[in-house]
Amino acid sequence: MTAATNLSGGRDDHLRGAIDRLKSHFGDRLTTAVAVRDQHGRDVSWHLPHPPDAVVFPETAEEVSRIVAICHTFDIPVIPFGTGTSCEGHVAALQGGVCVDLSRLDRILAVQPDDMTATVEAGVTRKRLNAELRDTGLFFPVDPGADASLGGMASTRASGTNAMRYGTMKDNVISLGVVLPNGDRIRTASHARKSAAGYDLTRLWVGSEGTLGIVTDVTVKLHPIPDHVVAVSASFSTLEQAVGFVLVATRLTDTLARIELLDELQVEAVNRYSKLALPVEPTLFIELHGSRGAVDAALPLVEEEAHAAGASRFETAVSAEARSRLWQARHDIWWANLALRPGASALPTDSCVPVSRLVEAILAAKADVSELGLVAPICGHVGDGNFHLCVLFDPADPDERHRVEVLSKRLASRAIALNGTSTGEHGIGHGKMAALVAEHGQAVRVMAAIKRAIDPHNIMNPGKIFTLAEAPPFS
Amino acid sequence: MTAATNLSGGRDDHLRGAIDRLKSHFGDRLTTAVAVRDQHGRDVSWHLPHPPDAVVFPETAEEVSRIVAICHTFDIPVIPFGTGTSCEGHVAALQGGVCVDLSRLDRILAVQPDDMTATVEAGVTRKRLNAELRDTGLFFPVDPGADASLGGMASTRASGTNAMRYGTMKDNVISLGVVLPNGDRIRTASHARKSAAGYDLTRLWVGSEGTLGIVTDVTVKLHPIPDHVVAVSASFSTLEQAVGFVLVATRLTDTLARIELLDELQVEAVNRYSKLALPVEPTLFIELHGSRGAVDAALPLVEEEAHAAGASRFETAVSAEARSRLWQARHDIWWANLALRPGASALPTDSCVPVSRLVEAILAAKADVSELGLVAPICGHVGDGNFHLCVLFDPADPDERHRVEVLSKRLASRAIALNGTSTGEHGIGHGKMAALVAEHGQAVRVMAAIKRAIDPHNIMNPGKIFTLAEAPPFS
Repeated sequence: MTAATNLSGGRDDHLRGAIDRLKSHFGDRLTTAVAVRDQHGRDVSWHLPHPPDAVVFPETAEEVSRIVAICHTFDIPVIPFGTGTSCEGHVAALQGGVCVDLSRLDRILAVQPDDMTATVEAGVTRKRLNAELRDTGLFFPVDPGADASLGGMASTRASGTNAMRYGTMKDNVISLGVVLPNGDRIRTASHARKSAAGYDLTRLWVGSEGTLGIVTDVTVKLHPIPDHVVAVSASFSTLEQAVGFVLVATRLTDTLARIELLDELQVEAVNRYSKLALPVEPTLFIELHGSRGAVDAALPLVEEEAHAAGASRFETAVSAEARSRLWQARHDIWWANLALRPGASALPTDSCVPVSRLVEAILAAKADVSELGLVAPICGHVGDGNFHLCVLFDPADPDERHRVEVLSKRLASRAIALNGTSTGEHGIGHGKMAALVAEHGQAVRVMAAIKRAIDPHNIMNPGKIFTLAEAPPFS
Repeated sequence: MTAATNLSGGRDDHLRGAIDRLKSHFGDRLTTAVAVRDQHGRDVSWHLPHPPDAVVFPETAEEVSRIVAICHTFDIPVIPFGTGTSCEGHVAALQGGVCVDLSRLDRILAVQPDDMTATVEAGVTRKRLNAELRDTGLFFPVDPGADASLGGMASTRASGTNAMRYGTMKDNVISLGVVLPNGDRIRTASHARKSAAGYDLTRLWVGSEGTLGIVTDVTVKLHPIPDHVVAVSASFSTLEQAVGFVLVATRLTDTLARIELLDELQVEAVNRYSKLALPVEPTLFIELHGSRGAVDAALPLVEEEAHAAGASRFETAVSAEARSRLWQARHDIWWANLALRPGASALPTDSCVPVSRLVEAILAAKADVSELGLVAPICGHVGDGNFHLCVLFDPADPDERHRVEVLSKRLASRAIALNGTSTGEHGIGHGKMAALVAEHGQAVRVMAAIKRAIDPHNIMNPGKIFTLAEAPPFS
């Protein structure tokens, strides 16, 4: 039974009814213009766009609640939209419906320096938040490639280069304001830094990709800006050496905030795009954070171990400019890679394995790329065991596209075989649903049971993460 | 419809059927002896014991699965039991049923030093795990008062004195082996350090208090034993000064691993029981962890700020013996408090508030204690905003017991009003269900919906965390 069984007419009537009702509330803030719908049906991924039937621009959580309640009444899909920078088709309106663009929920609701927390509306982006924190001595560390919204980052369990020291969204979200699929509003937790009060709804919503409701505000942990920061770029003759060093370094000092690996091709791309002149060898970008005493004590140890592991070059960057040049190059990798093969599409893979299996995983990936005749620079947050191939291909070449799909599947299977995951930070969307089943088996049935319990009409971002039909309810 | 509707007879017949079936599998490892049942119906709390009808001692996850499957068939409650050291009646067999004692699932399944992880069966205790890690240079930091089992600690989202630097069970569990309420087995996650693959089932099970199934193994993060550790005990004239210092110190250095507050009465109890001679003033026990350089750099800053905040005494303990004397005294607080009033029962409260509201919360609690004519030393993990009153009372005095209940309710309400929680680490059990509703409102309906979806017959630890009848399903 659906909420709309007492409504007359078919799917089209329901849709028209919902849009009419929304239009009467939102006026010009609801649009069915093709250009706007097109823009909201795609993310940065290679997946085909699926435009929604309408896009609505609420300005408050109360308005989000009203939208969802209306869609619930008419049994119409609802797709939340942050900045559209996800990687697995998360915002595709696979079954049509209403896209809720949250960019106008853009208020900083509170900054509490004593608690080292901030509460912001879902549409606030990470860079905007950090700009607002300028005078507090605090910062928000989670840094996916894009300037994503906090609501989107929470919904996809985002991370980035700082995760090693500061954690992912899982670790940095304290509480969420959520609109449930029936339009009701809840808060997932208090603002206490820890709690043992019932099920951890915050962590359930973090990473639920809009399938359980819409995040309207996010309370996050902030961190003191470290007193002292030193960046390092180090070159190694082989990947084994570079990753071997990571294993040692992780245990050597708690000042390690970032360790990013670039393979030879990735270094080449970065050199070209960001006008650097790094040796074309496996390279680590490293950053140490801490008190001056801690970083100064750690740096010579790290350098010594790097050389012991085989580093041919160990260059420090202390000034803000030098550090920023290095990390800007890291953050521009996506564009650097696209520039390697102009006109190509790019598929970013996202394996994450226990670090003890990382060398094995990366070497096998490189062998696959070579065997399949593809072009795919590798970079990664190797302190967490997470690495990305950026597979560049001609979308108009069906054979090449097929080989990309073979590679993508092999990488996912191998990560799972190595007791890792097909996705460290990009999420499942509708691009990795088969990999989720391969990885989680029976546990997907639990996920589906939760979805059914909270969203019995399956209106929230339907068709994402798992297929309900393949996961029967528990009895 | 229940799983047992096709079984003949009433509840007693079902119970007899389940016990007969279990007996045939487990022989002497199933007992209905009164002494064993009594021991398994109580935890360390003031709540009345509720013995189960039988206790069974499985030795493998496979056997746990078999037990649960049998109880599922006969529709009989199942109560998991670790070490019986929870604080809110978590193990009480409120509706009778079968208690599953997990102490014989005691194998260390794997220690992976390169990944800094260990996988242990649910019955392994935290001290046993740390003893096994002796030669690795790694340790497992989560330290509730008791030597609890890892399965129990995961199930109650335990934390302790180290949470400030190392996090709680929420932060330190990577993956769980779980037996679902129908007897099926799942793994909640791979062993990758981070993942964006679907709903975060690990975090859902952490803190679910046995209501969603039985944890059979736990994979946890380990941490390098810090190179250098310095303990400090500091005295302040007022609680405001002590807590004011905590706010400053937290932002001053990332070497802070522990900050424990003891009020005057708590200091008195500790002095008596642990033969210390601390000034009877609000006192902080502090511990700094890190490289020698980091700790040595931080210590003078911390001391300077302590004096600036009004510390009359700042004493460091560097040798392992001196540190251990301090922390042993901290860990013995429960016994020290019981010795304050021999024969008394003790109710440990568990408020946790944003640290900016901590002074307000503690001062109001002290005023309540005084107004109600009770005896209740205060200690707490104040870096997290978590503090405990240990309310000592005569269980045979109904008036005093009533005043204790009034106090307990006031503390919970106040923590919630200050945007905190009634329980930072002890959990809900059946002792704090009203507080959960006050804190979470409509969100409890979401928790109940999840419970119903995963455990439709409500056999897993029924009557805990929330009342299903008060939380209608979503439609």
